[in-house]
Amino acid sequence: MGHRAVANAIRAARFITVEGLEGAGKTSCLDYLVELLRNRAIEAVLTREPGGTSLGEAVRALLLDHRFRGMAGDAEALLIFAARAQHLAEVIRPALAAGQWVVCDRFTDATYAYQGGGRALGATRVGMLEHWVQGDLRPDRTLYLDVPVTVGLERIASRGIPDRFESERRAFFERVRRVYLERCRAEPQRMRWIDAGGSRETVHTQIAAALADLFNDGVEAR
Amino acid sequence: MGHRAVANAIRAARFITVEGLEGAGKTSCLDYLVELLRNRAIEAVLTREPGGTSLGEAVRALLLDHRFRGMAGDAEALLIFAARAQHLAEVIRPALAAGQWVVCDRFTDATYAYQGGGRALGATRVGMLEHWVQGDLRPDRTLYLDVPVTVGLERIASRGIPDRFESERRAFFERVRRVYLERCRAEPQRMRWIDAGGSRETVHTQIAAALADLFNDGVEAR
Repeated sequence: MGHRAVANAIRAARFITVEGLEGAGKTSCLDYLVELLRNRAIEAVLTREPGGTSLGEAVRALLLDHRFRGMAGDAEALLIFAARAQHLAEVIRPALAAGQWVVCDRFTDATYAYQGGGRALGATRVGMLEHWVQGDLRPDRTLYLDVPVTVGLERIASRGIPDRFESERRAFFERVRRVYLERCRAEPQRMRWIDAGGSRETVHTQIAAALADLFNDGVEAR
Repeated sequence: MGHRAVANAIRAARFITVEGLEGAGKTSCLDYLVELLRNRAIEAVLTREPGGTSLGEAVRALLLDHRFRGMAGDAEALLIFAARAQHLAEVIRPALAAGQWVVCDRFTDATYAYQGGGRALGATRVGMLEHWVQGDLRPDRTLYLDVPVTVGLERIASRGIPDRFESERRAFFERVRRVYLERCRAEPQRMRWIDAGGSRETVHTQIAAALADLFNDGVEAR
């Protein structure tokens, strides 16, 4: 590969995030995303939040732990951004700088939805931390897998003991979903609404379409 | 106690913090402070940072753990403020609201010193999180126990296995001390410089003098 090709590859590195309520089908979407990238020989890092580093996973364990049921909303948001700061420093920024795509299972849109909406912290306070931690870094594309709250909750009901978030009540998830939908409307170019209630095939078709313009092969971009 | 006396007691509740490098003698200072308050029949809560709550202690364990040697400065500051947010919500604000004094082993001055100075995050970035977490809440009085870095390090050398902070090099602690000294100069009314290199008796005398005006008994206030 010549210098120009390397430079192009580096310029083209994208940061893609996948968002959705519990039970929206994020795992299947991520598997499909990885397959799409592999088919195009695009080197990608698949990671998740909160987590993605050993510190982040330790923080994730605190966040999901029922022992901390009395966790203040402020503390929760700060813990999430602490894990995110480590994730950015250790994984995301180095990968993007090296020209690798990054696919992340949840990112800051989730903080707007769960802490900003679910915990009623508000978008302004989340936005302050977003700027403190990320500067101008935002995902290039975000796929929001939308299902009605009841559908998501039914899907996860069979998964075993719910964690601290999964134990929340329906009204909490309705607030979370409302924020996600608002964000899709506010930033339609970046944040794509995917109807995740249908068959696997229709969901995959929507995912491919939502990413087509990022692949410079011109085939799906039409 | 009549309504007026209760109201006075509530108005008089003070938030006192004790700061200092490792080995500066904070523990002995805190013991003496508790004794001073007990002698005046002042109800006080003695607590510490990072920590002070079960979540805060879990975060403290992450902060001190050598496993996380590669912790980003941003992540460290956010973890500390996460523990602080929980501490404020669960312990400090309720105690002050109930008219109890709060004596805290380290608080946000330590974040300015260790993360702002030691980790070179800078005062501006620490100040943004301070405001996000605390709003206008600041300690009423802060005692900074000053010892030269070498003296502090010698005193802790005998304490056993050093934690992640204690393992830092001398230049780190010099930066930490420099910030503490700057803050004493910038806010002399709130933040009192205590020469902690002398005998226990001289240190105690300085501590009593630095708090005298907070006790409304008028004896030490002269």
